[in-house]
Amino acid sequence: MQTFFNVPGYPAEMQGIRVCGREADRLRSKGYGRNDGRCIVLSYEEAVYLAEQGTAGLNFEKVFREAISIPGFDTRFFVYRDLRSRGYVLSVREDCFFGKKSFGMCFYPHSDEEWVSFEMLVARELPHIMAVVDGDGDVTYYMVERAEPEGECHERPGVEDVIMGEKRVFSLGRGDTGTFGRNEGRFRHFSMNEYYYLTGTRSENEIYAVYEDLRSRGLIVKSGFKYGTHFRVYERSMEEHARYLVHVLSEESMLQVSRAIRVAHGVRKTLLLAKKCGSEVKYIAISWLRP
Amino acid sequence: MQTFFNVPGYPAEMQGIRVCGREADRLRSKGYGRNDGRCIVLSYEEAVYLAEQGTAGLNFEKVFREAISIPGFDTRFFVYRDLRSRGYVLSVREDCFFGKKSFGMCFYPHSDEEWVSFEMLVARELPHIMAVVDGDGDVTYYMVERAEPEGECHERPGVEDVIMGEKRVFSLGRGDTGTFGRNEGRFRHFSMNEYYYLTGTRSENEIYAVYEDLRSRGLIVKSGFKYGTHFRVYERSMEEHARYLVHVLSEESMLQVSRAIRVAHGVRKTLLLAKKCGSEVKYIAISWLRP
Repeated sequence: MQTFFNVPGYPAEMQGIRVCGREADRLRSKGYGRNDGRCIVLSYEEAVYLAEQGTAGLNFEKVFREAISIPGFDTRFFVYRDLRSRGYVLSVREDCFFGKKSFGMCFYPHSDEEWVSFEMLVARELPHIMAVVDGDGDVTYYMVERAEPEGECHERPGVEDVIMGEKRVFSLGRGDTGTFGRNEGRFRHFSMNEYYYLTGTRSENEIYAVYEDLRSRGLIVKSGFKYGTHFRVYERSMEEHARYLVHVLSEESMLQVSRAIRVAHGVRKTLLLAKKCGSEVKYIAISWLRP
Repeated sequence: MQTFFNVPGYPAEMQGIRVCGREADRLRSKGYGRNDGRCIVLSYEEAVYLAEQGTAGLNFEKVFREAISIPGFDTRFFVYRDLRSRGYVLSVREDCFFGKKSFGMCFYPHSDEEWVSFEMLVARELPHIMAVVDGDGDVTYYMVERAEPEGECHERPGVEDVIMGEKRVFSLGRGDTGTFGRNEGRFRHFSMNEYYYLTGTRSENEIYAVYEDLRSRGLIVKSGFKYGTHFRVYERSMEEHARYLVHVLSEESMLQVSRAIRVAHGVRKTLLLAKKCGSEVKYIAISWLRP
């Protein structure tokens, strides 16, 4: 009735437990397994989950000990189990679990010890969901989707009488520079990003590339330091609350990304991860999700 | 009446503007300058600040242009100016501003682009205050003080029938393991840190060193992933709210540390930075401060 085929070095979806006959039909109707003629092959995540429920005639300890030796199994299993126990019907893919109904997108299992790069996130189909398993076995879900922020502020005033400081630029001129810089009475000061943008100075800095793109989209861009991100961004005016926190992501630990998402959630702003990819700056909105 | 001595390569406190006579007495009484016989020498932070106020007979533009060429001046000046304008009396030291009255401790100026190491923080006298200037010229203050967390939970149960997973350890045993691991019905699972601690396994991991120390202090230690830190820590029981977020700090950008402080502030927990220094694990509490 059951055949185990656990082949080291083969991808997880090639491995599993074959179930045939009426039991196969019953499980297939609940979304388990992949078809193999009149039989189905259960992935190990499915098999352990079903064994744990005492169904499919599987011996829990046998299946569990078999499964645990598969690389990445425990992280995948915690995600699969958490979602199934919440009632989601999932199909098992090589690197994610596809939520058939409610979501129509993939849940990517991750361990909390991994690193996240912008390239990794955009290489996947968007939107998708990251499911991160922590040391306690709790799963945290993050929705990852493309974003195209737009604002209404397209000013680009000039700057006069510039004095270069080490970390910023000063001006003793009197001109109004709108949402750029800050007037301190006897002087004005500008961030380096503001200075580059207003004077059209070329910069290879990857953080400036995002600043420039945001400003060219009509957004007002100020320091996000208090929130632990590169920028806070206003859509129309600084009289309103900043809508976005924007972080230029190269590669950071999952822990640091989690921290940024938590901050944004706490202050009710949308966290955008950004990076210049080739000649284009791309944006991803990432947010905490309770499935 | 005034002598400028701006000597490139000399520390900031060796440089400044000499003021003598009655004006020196008046400024001295307000906490400005350091004594030099019957004269005082104003640091450039003091001089620019006073010139900006139109006092001390200083020409603002002249002093400002002179000062701006000193390395680190703009960051130091923004901190000095922010604190003075809030009414604090400060004496200028080589690497910090000592708050003479209200605080009795040093304010260390930092730029938001710097990196923070645990060693750097403990090398300074504690408590002290970090004053971080962001791209907009806003100053954020962080109180840095020593901490000695203590808890009341000293259990250390055994674990049976262990099965090693990739990221965690499973047990099919039935024993009660208290605040360690989690019972899922058919199995229990433990984090690697819990496993090492309960079995006395030696580990050179620097994050485990902090876990072990926290547990040996009677604290209950769980994953801090949702908050973007290594641990959340309970003093007595997990029925109560976690009192601490604990982060094992090697070296992170000021931005990442700011992010962690913001999270902790938002959830009303105390952020502890921790590290094993020699044979001892040290803790520093770091918190947002509005001066």
